[in-house]
Amino acid sequence: MNYLKNAWYCAGWSSDIGREPISKTFLEESIVMYRREDGTPVALSNRCPHRFAPLCEGKLKGDNIECPYHGLQYDANGTCILNPHGRGIIPKAAQLRSYPLVEREGTLWIWMGDAENIDEEQIVGTPFLVQKDQYASTTGYLKVKVNYQLFVDNLLDLTHAPYLHPDTLAGATEESMAPGKMTVEFVQGERDIQSNYFVRDMPATPQLAVFWENSAPGDFRALMHWHAPATLVLEVSLTETGKPKEEGVIVPVMHFMTPETATTSHYFFAIGHNRDIDDTEKTRVISEYAIRAFADEDEPMVEACQELMGGVLDLFALQPVLLETDVAAVKARRLLDEMILAEVNTPA
Amino acid sequence: MNYLKNAWYCAGWSSDIGREPISKTFLEESIVMYRREDGTPVALSNRCPHRFAPLCEGKLKGDNIECPYHGLQYDANGTCILNPHGRGIIPKAAQLRSYPLVEREGTLWIWMGDAENIDEEQIVGTPFLVQKDQYASTTGYLKVKVNYQLFVDNLLDLTHAPYLHPDTLAGATEESMAPGKMTVEFVQGERDIQSNYFVRDMPATPQLAVFWENSAPGDFRALMHWHAPATLVLEVSLTETGKPKEEGVIVPVMHFMTPETATTSHYFFAIGHNRDIDDTEKTRVISEYAIRAFADEDEPMVEACQELMGGVLDLFALQPVLLETDVAAVKARRLLDEMILAEVNTPA
Amino acid sequence: MNYLKNAWYCAGWSSDIGREPISKTFLEESIVMYRREDGTPVALSNRCPHRFAPLCEGKLKGDNIECPYHGLQYDANGTCILNPHGRGIIPKAAQLRSYPLVEREGTLWIWMGDAENIDEEQIVGTPFLVQKDQYASTTGYLKVKVNYQLFVDNLLDLTHAPYLHPDTLAGATEESMAPGKMTVEFVQGERDIQSNYFVRDMPATPQLAVFWENSAPGDFRALMHWHAPATLVLEVSLTETGKPKEEGVIVPVMHFMTPETATTSHYFFAIGHNRDIDDTEKTRVISEYAIRAFADEDEPMVEACQELMGGVLDLFALQPVLLETDVAAVKARRLLDEMILAEVNTPA
Repeated sequence: MNYLKNAWYCAGWSSDIGREPISKTFLEESIVMYRREDGTPVALSNRCPHRFAPLCEGKLKGDNIECPYHGLQYDANGTCILNPHGRGIIPKAAQLRSYPLVEREGTLWIWMGDAENIDEEQIVGTPFLVQKDQYASTTGYLKVKVNYQLFVDNLLDLTHAPYLHPDTLAGATEESMAPGKMTVEFVQGERDIQSNYFVRDMPATPQLAVFWENSAPGDFRALMHWHAPATLVLEVSLTETGKPKEEGVIVPVMHFMTPETATTSHYFFAIGHNRDIDDTEKTRVISEYAIRAFADEDEPMVEACQELMGGVLDLFALQPVLLETDVAAVKARRLLDEMILAEVNTPA
Repeated sequence: MNYLKNAWYCAGWSSDIGREPISKTFLEESIVMYRREDGTPVALSNRCPHRFAPLCEGKLKGDNIECPYHGLQYDANGTCILNPHGRGIIPKAAQLRSYPLVEREGTLWIWMGDAENIDEEQIVGTPFLVQKDQYASTTGYLKVKVNYQLFVDNLLDLTHAPYLHPDTLAGATEESMAPGKMTVEFVQGERDIQSNYFVRDMPATPQLAVFWENSAPGDFRALMHWHAPATLVLEVSLTETGKPKEEGVIVPVMHFMTPETATTSHYFFAIGHNRDIDDTEKTRVISEYAIRAFADEDEPMVEACQELMGGVLDLFALQPVLLETDVAAVKARRLLDEMILAEVNTPA
Repeated sequence: MNYLKNAWYCAGWSSDIGREPISKTFLEESIVMYRREDGTPVALSNRCPHRFAPLCEGKLKGDNIECPYHGLQYDANGTCILNPHGRGIIPKAAQLRSYPLVEREGTLWIWMGDAENIDEEQIVGTPFLVQKDQYASTTGYLKVKVNYQLFVDNLLDLTHAPYLHPDTLAGATEESMAPGKMTVEFVQGERDIQSNYFVRDMPATPQLAVFWENSAPGDFRALMHWHAPATLVLEVSLTETGKPKEEGVIVPVMHFMTPETATTSHYFFAIGHNRDIDDTEKTRVISEYAIRAFADEDEPMVEACQELMGGVLDLFALQPVLLETDVAAVKARRLLDEMILAEVNTPA
């Protein structure tokens, strides 16, 4: 299928790659990643152009990678620099595609389009991963058997939370859904959309209760910020009624979806908290709530939806019933469709 | 593939559905079934038209069903009656397809075509399931990895029995197949076909021997009645030689095939007996003979045939060698083909 | 896909078939094999033309085979000779395709093309399997999830050995790959290609060390002979430097690939040795080295390459980078392509 190529996709967390090559498929392209001896991360096509062997199974020789099948060696730019056989002639075509791979604030970002279009300004920050004096945090990963856009839909419409996550990330239906309790704000940008939820007088959700000392309700906020194509930054908070957000419990949550194939995706997530930051048990507990919600509640539901869509991946082709609360998800799909179309139609 | 839509298909036994929604796929359509508070069975499209979530995972609220993803509620006619979000606007298109579901004599029948064409006269009776003073009975279910028509072929040509079921439902080859011992009768109706087998001087099959006190042979009958598209009513009996059938052991067996997909089917079966009807051990034993025959003998054989057909589901396209004994199965296929063709060509 | 039909393919080892019918799929055709009472091997279509049941599950009645579904009987030429039902009429079309199956030197060879084109001269010998006074030997079998041509590529380019098999069949890279140590000879025939490797002053490989009493290096030879379409005869040897090959350790290895489907193959292999032929432990050990190399090193690598080829089975369509050392594999592919094309274009 068509993906937005000129964009940054999360390729993993800093701790995911080292001096052992690993491979992941992004946008249907198999990619090998490793670090040079000086620590710089490298992303190359995983497919040796000679016999199509997986380079991720090869050995690093300094900054170079050796094909495990016939021993061709490529440098960190993807150029073949050794043919160990016969007269050692290296054909010009023995060149791997090299992908820009940027490491920032504990996160790896890969650029899947033309290198000349790179724009590092577009990289989304994950400051709470490195502000160790203000936040504790954990990172995680799930492989999901779902088209990435269905997960974006899920995240941009948090009205599903009281139905799907009553015991983890959301409160009971009656507490958050009573008429007039919830306000939703929608903000459209050029390449991004915000969908912000505010619920007044809401008791702490099971996850937030970990940090909420009393049983009184408060001002609940879930500020969701989508950046095309599939980078979602969420900030959940609970504050004493009427107080400024900064005085409350803040739980930032990153949801970075990277398409693997049309029907499977990489789901990189990170969770932080600004209270009790030295209490590693609390960090573990809120992370488990999130993992339960993502892996046991969201993933099976979205996978079931995809299955009932019967192989049709374009949601609009199925003429879904649209509700008012779908505005953010629908606008994000339309914006992304336009961006992909513009990219496909750009003369090379 | 094309199925006969204006027809009743078995949707299960009465005990299969209650106040917990369940889903099954019939004719490639995912359907949710449950009972209203007054016990009336309900069949609706399982796919919420909003985001295509499976309603079978939702909760019943009285007679209504709540979508597990975003909480839309549908009444038992499939009409959306609640949108719990925002201003609660319900789009007109928020309507589930409702399928007529009739309960009769312990059996559930679903109509997959236009409701205006319903004809309850066509429902096949299963009286022995409710005539508790005359019959003991059990019901069962198998999911088979086979196109439903291949199973109909199997059932309409019982000459396979001595080869495939010598230790369960049939006698030894030499006992039933000797020249002149077997008579086969073929009767064609407008929407049905009968294929009746009579073998004289035949020892009791392993299954019938459960009720047959002596070792003498008798008059064996297997009266098979196919109703389009895939409802088969069998009556097996053994009677002292020359005596009327009613005086003998009678074992009625229902074989109701409902297509799930082109290559998988629901196999609902029921078995009764008119002797020793209070002996539950005998009921269990003859049921086990049947299950062994269906699950361990028929299913693997028909599945192997389908596999050797190499993905071609239209038997005639493979130009099979036709034997005299194929008459009932071949006529049933031709009749069903005509009915489907007529239906497809009917102007809407 | 198109295969070379007028050719001998290995169908197994003599010990593989007996009086129990077995089935294998060759070139996408399901075939049943068994022995007549006099021991002659038989190969017939496995698919009964009546209802497409698998004959391999049927019983032998003398030299005939009985269909397990409805009892039709076929003789060893594939002609239906009994219909046990009704008047017993046998339709002319009740005929199985019969495949020439030749047994020679412990090996079974099947001809997949027109019987009139048979040429037994083309059968490749496996004399070491029967010369029990000169060789000890074992035979084996692997089902591989790979197109057969990718395995032929693998075998015709043994430069992969030091990279993929350093602990089994090959020596360390530095020992065999040093500049000027290895000579490769290429010989093209009308239907065959030889690709012969000679390495001077090479220490014994782990496999050859089983028979090599001293630690001195020797003259290593690996003479690979491919016969279209996928029959590969290898002779590995190690000889004291400068001495004639016949005085050294000789290990003949057969690699007979028979396509099952486009993406799976039968891999029949046999290994012999001319030293210590009464030492069955040594026979076992060198066989285990081979099995490790084929099953744990070659197969996963070639399967990974096929996967990275993304469903494209024609290697050339992916425009691979060609090295000098690919000459034998590339020529073999071109020769086979021409042979298949000539066959497809021959008027029937």
